[in-house]
Amino acid sequence: MLPFTFYSPTLFAFGENAEAQTGQLIRRFGGSRVLLVYGGGSVKRSGAYDAVTASLREAGLPFAELSGVQPNPRSGKVYEGIALARQEKSDFLLALGGGSVIDTAKAIGCGALYDGDFWDFFTGKAKIEATLPVGTVLTIAAAGSEGSDSMVITQEAGNLKWGAPKTDVIRPKFSVLDPRFTCSLPAYQTACGTTDMMAHICERYFTNPPDVGLTDRLCEALLKTAVEAAPRAIADPNDLSARGDLMWTGMLAHNNSCGVGREQDWASHQIEHELSAFYDCAHGAGLAVVMPAWMEFVMDHDIARFARFAVNVFGCEMDYAHPERTAREGIRRMRAFLRYIGMPTSLSDIGARAEDIDAMVAHRAEKPNGFPFGGFVKIGPEEMRAILRLCDR
Amino acid sequence: MLPFTFYSPTLFAFGENAEAQTGQLIRRFGGSRVLLVYGGGSVKRSGAYDAVTASLREAGLPFAELSGVQPNPRSGKVYEGIALARQEKSDFLLALGGGSVIDTAKAIGCGALYDGDFWDFFTGKAKIEATLPVGTVLTIAAAGSEGSDSMVITQEAGNLKWGAPKTDVIRPKFSVLDPRFTCSLPAYQTACGTTDMMAHICERYFTNPPDVGLTDRLCEALLKTAVEAAPRAIADPNDLSARGDLMWTGMLAHNNSCGVGREQDWASHQIEHELSAFYDCAHGAGLAVVMPAWMEFVMDHDIARFARFAVNVFGCEMDYAHPERTAREGIRRMRAFLRYIGMPTSLSDIGARAEDIDAMVAHRAEKPNGFPFGGFVKIGPEEMRAILRLCDR
Repeated sequence: MLPFTFYSPTLFAFGENAEAQTGQLIRRFGGSRVLLVYGGGSVKRSGAYDAVTASLREAGLPFAELSGVQPNPRSGKVYEGIALARQEKSDFLLALGGGSVIDTAKAIGCGALYDGDFWDFFTGKAKIEATLPVGTVLTIAAAGSEGSDSMVITQEAGNLKWGAPKTDVIRPKFSVLDPRFTCSLPAYQTACGTTDMMAHICERYFTNPPDVGLTDRLCEALLKTAVEAAPRAIADPNDLSARGDLMWTGMLAHNNSCGVGREQDWASHQIEHELSAFYDCAHGAGLAVVMPAWMEFVMDHDIARFARFAVNVFGCEMDYAHPERTAREGIRRMRAFLRYIGMPTSLSDIGARAEDIDAMVAHRAEKPNGFPFGGFVKIGPEEMRAILRLCDR
Repeated sequence: MLPFTFYSPTLFAFGENAEAQTGQLIRRFGGSRVLLVYGGGSVKRSGAYDAVTASLREAGLPFAELSGVQPNPRSGKVYEGIALARQEKSDFLLALGGGSVIDTAKAIGCGALYDGDFWDFFTGKAKIEATLPVGTVLTIAAAGSEGSDSMVITQEAGNLKWGAPKTDVIRPKFSVLDPRFTCSLPAYQTACGTTDMMAHICERYFTNPPDVGLTDRLCEALLKTAVEAAPRAIADPNDLSARGDLMWTGMLAHNNSCGVGREQDWASHQIEHELSAFYDCAHGAGLAVVMPAWMEFVMDHDIARFARFAVNVFGCEMDYAHPERTAREGIRRMRAFLRYIGMPTSLSDIGARAEDIDAMVAHRAEKPNGFPFGGFVKIGPEEMRAILRLCDR
């Protein structure tokens, strides 16, 4: 077990009608003037917008609004939000939405207190030292940004989809998790979110060192819950038990509860960022394509671990004479599960083309410290090309 | 899944030599004058005292000392600490020890900011609104107080071993977890600690409602880790992997990660508090006696859950024709495991006497809201008597 620091100071208010606490929570964490950040019409149709703004009014909190955040959130909206937060003298950011909205709010929070370009935090030119406090009201179980120390923004100049260095500074002060707000999600988005949270766990599970018994078991507990709950939520979108399981699993998958005591990998995420930068596919959809291919590419480095995954998550029988068969069967079932919930599993499924592989690798190389990446197996340009070729099925 | 609030804002610094961060962590959380609280000579023999005070000196932090805290910590030491903290103008409490030391520091922290008797917080006469910040350097994996919202103190006037109402106010700001500090623990204390953490999980596992899939799996992950790691730590006290697993399991067992979304029970703890009040037995030892007896007494209320425990934690084969046999076999294995690691499992093993059962029940009745207790099955005086009689084996 490697040394670690675990710090997850976010307050989570979970359950039906938890959003009625939003105004009080903002007061508790020191807010008095709110910038409300959200996407499009879905939060208005679902009733989330009305419920949250009612809570703000009840707490006597004035608020300005920044709407129109899109999936794979873009820098333009961050610049707009920074200007608005300064103009309105906002001292608290409330993100109402999923990972894209939350990451936009996190970036605004850091940028509003910084004299330079917020993108400096992503390039490494500046270090995040402070932020306006951020709270969230979650509307999709997926990215885990509601409890995480990370954010991903696409810089429009250059089409660079980059993550900022992880820092506890940007963890939200609170997150409201009302499973009802996720009931209106289409099946496809529910599946994308499930894939995203499973990938967050796998990035922490398939790596070194092996002797982290509890972390392994926690990862398996989350993976099994996702595999069990997602089909229920897709079959009956109003199954609040399944929606609640997914919502809580998505948070725990990324607040690092399941990542302590070992290295982490994150290679699949890095490769996927190029897919969504090139094709603007949903992050979860890109991960469904990349992750099983990455697993095939690296499994020989730790057959026992991939076999354990097959047995403990997907119920395979252990083939003690040929553990590599068990390992391979686990990957096959993972891909079959993703297809079952409606995910793409090949480049062509998301409109990507094998001819672009070299361009994606070259684009990655432009990033500071672009290669190699990956904590479990080092991925250089050649390995990235090979993994993307395995996605071309 | 019931609505819940989960808030665990403690920073955990885990690993060998993590205690070197102690001084900086106190500075980070606003401390400038420290009251260092500890027990007896063991922290001096283990080197923990030297390492921690060196870190305080390096950070330029003046500190006063309160030593002599005993297991089943008593009110006298709390009063002494409150007076000392005021005299020394301490603004930060550093607990160096296990649950008894940490709970003493928590009580001092609340009492120092309160004009009345700190015991008012335990009787319900006053509510905890504020505390001096508390940090911990843990030396035994057991009570989980290093991450919890609870504390238990024995009021010497009346021999009342009571817990304060749970409140996030008293969660430590940080906890330093260096598994090396637990390597000098005798086997018996290692086993007591393991029993305590297993009980913390069981209190959250054997209750209602059943449909909390993820919480169930997390509980099972922790229980299996404890069952697997404790014998390793006892066989080789310097097995840092086993010590680390136990240390992290003990924290997660009680910071409520495994308790969200349902009621909790806590009947076994309530009964055990009388055992340790009467016989001053180790808390874990008392729990080893009470918990399996409680399980036998209540198992008919949810045979399926006890059978699941037997299968998922102790590897029993499910008897689908007679699930009650599986349930019973799980309890038998739990008790066998506790005996295997050296725990007592009957009243006589801890020097308790069946003749005192009525007196213990009467003593419990003196507590405000003394009966009934228990979230899963309501325990009145008659039920408490019956459970204690099952302990008389």
